[in-house]
Amino acid sequence: MISEVPEKTDIRKTQTLIAPYVHRTQVHTSVSLNSVAGSNMFFKCENFQKGGAFKYRGATNAIMALSREEAIRGVATHSSGNHAQALSLAAGTRGIKAYIVMPQNAPKIKVDAVRSYGGEITFCQPTLPDREATLLKVIEETGALEIHPYNDYRIIAGQATAAAELFEDVEELDCLIAPVGGGGLLSGCILSARYFSPNTKVYGAEPEKANDAWKSFRHKKLIPVDTALTIADGLRTSLGSRTFPIIIEGAADILCVTEEGIIKAMFMIWERMKLMVEPSAAVPLAAIMEHPSLFAGKRTGVILSGGNVDLHKILHYGQ
Amino acid sequence: MISEVPEKTDIRKTQTLIAPYVHRTQVHTSVSLNSVAGSNMFFKCENFQKGGAFKYRGATNAIMALSREEAIRGVATHSSGNHAQALSLAAGTRGIKAYIVMPQNAPKIKVDAVRSYGGEITFCQPTLPDREATLLKVIEETGALEIHPYNDYRIIAGQATAAAELFEDVEELDCLIAPVGGGGLLSGCILSARYFSPNTKVYGAEPEKANDAWKSFRHKKLIPVDTALTIADGLRTSLGSRTFPIIIEGAADILCVTEEGIIKAMFMIWERMKLMVEPSAAVPLAAIMEHPSLFAGKRTGVILSGGNVDLHKILHYGQ
Repeated sequence: MISEVPEKTDIRKTQTLIAPYVHRTQVHTSVSLNSVAGSNMFFKCENFQKGGAFKYRGATNAIMALSREEAIRGVATHSSGNHAQALSLAAGTRGIKAYIVMPQNAPKIKVDAVRSYGGEITFCQPTLPDREATLLKVIEETGALEIHPYNDYRIIAGQATAAAELFEDVEELDCLIAPVGGGGLLSGCILSARYFSPNTKVYGAEPEKANDAWKSFRHKKLIPVDTALTIADGLRTSLGSRTFPIIIEGAADILCVTEEGIIKAMFMIWERMKLMVEPSAAVPLAAIMEHPSLFAGKRTGVILSGGNVDLHKILHYGQ
Repeated sequence: MISEVPEKTDIRKTQTLIAPYVHRTQVHTSVSLNSVAGSNMFFKCENFQKGGAFKYRGATNAIMALSREEAIRGVATHSSGNHAQALSLAAGTRGIKAYIVMPQNAPKIKVDAVRSYGGEITFCQPTLPDREATLLKVIEETGALEIHPYNDYRIIAGQATAAAELFEDVEELDCLIAPVGGGGLLSGCILSARYFSPNTKVYGAEPEKANDAWKSFRHKKLIPVDTALTIADGLRTSLGSRTFPIIIEGAADILCVTEEGIIKAMFMIWERMKLMVEPSAAVPLAAIMEHPSLFAGKRTGVILSGGNVDLHKILHYGQ
């Protein structure tokens, strides 16, 4: 059980624990994108991860680390995104139940994905208070254990394994950049860099329209996002009490990007790298292109966080 | 110089000759697509090939096999598609000129791609007679050697290396399926299966709207396509005098697919495999889904032929 900021050994143990279940994802490069962005980039393809996103790492760690007594109670969360899918899939792998609270207006494609992975859905009103109240009720009725999408050290240690693998596969990275929503992935990157590649600077990339991490980092206190009308739907959440301290201590900076920059970067990854990534996953490349001086001539690791695109929405957006 | 149907040793030599220049592309699998299609599929990712398509294999073989005297004359072709890009890129790698005749209404994205690879473009009227007349003129003026996109044994031997690699990486394939336009790729697949995996049945997959290979196969004579209004822009051409005999002798069958089937298969590859493929590359999966009895429970190799999507066109089509 990881109940404090994960240590080096915690991350190594997590790697061993989850290795039989997660994909060791590939690292892709692109001569053409390097030339456009002026940086030597190494893309960690978490879009190829099971469930289509890095989230499966943390969810698997949280679930596989449960004792037998805990596990039989099942797990629960409220999420309309990749965490819901990841938790359902990981719970199914261990043969336990996943209770997912989703807003009743969640896209059908996401509802279907959670169901196809065996998650048991309870619908709620699309407001945070009702999501939380419904989750509490589900937990009360089922006895399931809540697995928070990011504000949990087991989740952070799981997400850290993406960067840990990247450091094993690509030497001497000057920088590493990851998108930041709730901060689970970025915290994990910071910890893995600290332990396994201390000369690597770690940046968070965030949409201007959901810039709570940027504000929190600048003001050195947790400032939640008000409204987050960004296309990068994975990054609309705010930092948590466990992710913020790791980020404020370890991030080189938080870089904001425009919506136009996100869409441009996403289409470049689609067209030039032939990789299907979701808008959130394109935010780091957008940041490299909008803040070029930080990355010029550097060896830069980039976490492509996921590939769960709602194509109908994007096709509409593309018009 | 390969001037007859390539033998086993020709394909092995081609593999060695082009190995320093081409990517040995990955093989991807998808539990979710296997379950939808009812077949155990192994996708050879030529969308990750240099230039974004398998065409680079044949173009590289044709160019690297030229004598020094031939090479300095440069190469020429008429094409508005992947062959133009592949030939420009391969010529640039050898440091020789590529003269490309393109119709003046060719999409800007393709014109830009050829230019970015160093190809020298001559525009012509968008008719086959004017394309051929303009190419002859360019050849007369420059002395360049014509490299046909598929009706050339050097090209066929080059394309054959994709299947040869797949047979090395995945054992005991019951079937192999590739899209068929001019037939260079399918001919290559047939030859590699004959030499390296004789128990594998090889199928060609073709849009109903460009069904010249299907007709030619059925009637045992070369019947060119009239008009080919398929979204699979790489498959609008007709078989050639060198590809047709290999196909009629070695293909298990030619399978036709609907336009709806192509689009559905393409979006499934995008959404579930997180791979950006062009419409032509989705034609084999469409064929597996529209002819399920042939592939049920079989180990099936699938050539994902390329990833050069004209996104603006597709986005428009998706509406």
